[in-house]
Amino acid sequence: MREIYLDNSATTPVDEKVREAMMEALGCYGNPSSLHSKGLEGERMVHAARKQVAKALGAKEQEIYFTSGGTEANNTLVLGAALAKRRQGNRIVTTAIEHASVLESVKFLEEQGFECIYVPPERDGNIDPGKVLDAVDGKTVLLSTMLVNNETGAVLPVGEIVREAKRKAPGMLVHCDAVQAFGKLPVKVNTLGVDLLTVTAHKIYGPKGVGAFYKARQARILPLLHGGEQQDKLRPGTENTAGIAAFGEACRLAGERREADLAHAAKLNACLRELLRGLSSVEINSPEDALPYILNLSGNRARSEIMLHFLEQRGIYVSSGSACAKGEGSHVLKAMGLPDRQRDTALRISFGRQNTEEDCAEFVKALREGLETLRY
Amino acid sequence: MREIYLDNSATTPVDEKVREAMMEALGCYGNPSSLHSKGLEGERMVHAARKQVAKALGAKEQEIYFTSGGTEANNTLVLGAALAKRRQGNRIVTTAIEHASVLESVKFLEEQGFECIYVPPERDGNIDPGKVLDAVDGKTVLLSTMLVNNETGAVLPVGEIVREAKRKAPGMLVHCDAVQAFGKLPVKVNTLGVDLLTVTAHKIYGPKGVGAFYKARQARILPLLHGGEQQDKLRPGTENTAGIAAFGEACRLAGERREADLAHAAKLNACLRELLRGLSSVEINSPEDALPYILNLSGNRARSEIMLHFLEQRGIYVSSGSACAKGEGSHVLKAMGLPDRQRDTALRISFGRQNTEEDCAEFVKALREGLETLRY
Repeated sequence: MREIYLDNSATTPVDEKVREAMMEALGCYGNPSSLHSKGLEGERMVHAARKQVAKALGAKEQEIYFTSGGTEANNTLVLGAALAKRRQGNRIVTTAIEHASVLESVKFLEEQGFECIYVPPERDGNIDPGKVLDAVDGKTVLLSTMLVNNETGAVLPVGEIVREAKRKAPGMLVHCDAVQAFGKLPVKVNTLGVDLLTVTAHKIYGPKGVGAFYKARQARILPLLHGGEQQDKLRPGTENTAGIAAFGEACRLAGERREADLAHAAKLNACLRELLRGLSSVEINSPEDALPYILNLSGNRARSEIMLHFLEQRGIYVSSGSACAKGEGSHVLKAMGLPDRQRDTALRISFGRQNTEEDCAEFVKALREGLETLRY
Repeated sequence: MREIYLDNSATTPVDEKVREAMMEALGCYGNPSSLHSKGLEGERMVHAARKQVAKALGAKEQEIYFTSGGTEANNTLVLGAALAKRRQGNRIVTTAIEHASVLESVKFLEEQGFECIYVPPERDGNIDPGKVLDAVDGKTVLLSTMLVNNETGAVLPVGEIVREAKRKAPGMLVHCDAVQAFGKLPVKVNTLGVDLLTVTAHKIYGPKGVGAFYKARQARILPLLHGGEQQDKLRPGTENTAGIAAFGEACRLAGERREADLAHAAKLNACLRELLRGLSSVEINSPEDALPYILNLSGNRARSEIMLHFLEQRGIYVSSGSACAKGEGSHVLKAMGLPDRQRDTALRISFGRQNTEEDCAEFVKALREGLETLRY
């Protein structure tokens, strides 16, 4: 059976060149912290990858820190920024549609006494920049907003928000979770105007277990991990050298392919939207102007999990929402105010390089079958 | 030039079989949290590796959590245990010779108001169990002690300490950093009697960037990272599937080879000690009964870094102490009370599977040359 993988926002296959870079790096086993030349070899590898990540983000090398992934990076930045700024103010502003690793970090800070504002999305899934700005006041120490929502593909107007917000709270730090945007949209830290930013490898054809964050040189945050001298003591621990080398290569490839990939995703998205018009019960939950890589829809018949398994029996892999939620109800669609049935029957289609228009047609054909035979 | 790598406690080369397991896992790209069968494939891989780690430690699968390495595991356990127990008491007991990731975590807790006791080693590098027990009182909530010291190879009497300590403070949690012992000595959680334990892959011929911790089912700790539903929400974030699969294989191999490897290390250690007798200025800093994998010595002539570079020009790689310290002075040798010159000229030799008696002879030959030509 032909496999049609339409869950690329959960994770992507590892690119052949990335795999090769990783293999090569595995052979170079020195500990980057060792003082001898075997260690230096490892350190050079980390350095080269850091350069690639920095280049992709328009940042300086010294502003890039490697982590175990997006979750650790989001935690480090949100907690590290808020706790470093604790004496300057008490308010944290974020949106209600952030990834769990940001939302749960903010909730943790709320338990520690911070006043946390979760700006809800509009009914179409977009965030109104005015509402975010209204929430920011002079006591605000941290604003955390994603660039692309992982469930709907909604693109948040981060640049616009940040410019205005920094006027209202000049001492504040701004964090952006760019995990779903990186490699898909241009993600340049200066254009966005953010102080802190999160990216990860396994959404851009790199391996799982490695991510990075950007911290503007002048931004001060507290470390989450304590220990050795690695990465300016801000993120100690022996570096995941092979994963980091692979991430560097994935960044390089993403830079080369981003525009062609985006055009490809736009074509697939348009094709899928067109085909879905033939299915009367289907509603699209993604905003019209969402990033074309993601299309969230509701069949309004069978529950997500039932449909998901029906599709996978036909070799088609989609998701019911964020993978990290493991099937828990979507807080994003709920915040958008979608009715129960629409939420319970939602599917997220997310495209990758390897997908074709034929994949869209096969998916819609199977979805139609499912909608006709399965019941809520 | 033949390479002689004698820095295996900093990190080991990746075993060929481990490399193969990692490559195979890279091809299986599903996100373990995805609900479809591609995700299940990833989840099964993580599950199989967890089983291997659990087996190696004599633990249950549900008691094993994967992390980005030893540093993250030590931080999670030390901070998570102390903060969970905060209301029960205020004292933390550890030793002065722990790895930086434990010591710095404990220091962080000290800043948060905990009363922290750092038990010093004896002059020979060993820890007197009586002194640890004297430090434990009824208000003690956490005892953290390593099993093998990473700089001297000193073996700490963890089992003996724990049995007595738990009598004095029954509600206390005991953590053991077993990073340098794992795969070398038998490390069984029940024999040791610990509640929390840290291991990592890159000291046992696995890749860098993946570690694990054991948490006894009844032990309650707070998570360090907040976010998704992964690993009981105690350690959220998409799993490093390839690294985890590799770690599983490294554990399996370590189980098969541990006894033969230990005998091999003992032979090399005896050979090296014998050869060093011919060098009058050399003093051994490791205890007589240390784990034979590590031999710490002082040449009492050239400074460590100078000697290290002299040796590496001859293809011989050793270290001046913990790699994580990046050449900072050794807190371990200092705590042992060694005089300045002995500390400043210390070298750590650490053996691996691939080393031979010829390596020892080559090293001693080069060391002799260095001692004759270099000056303090």
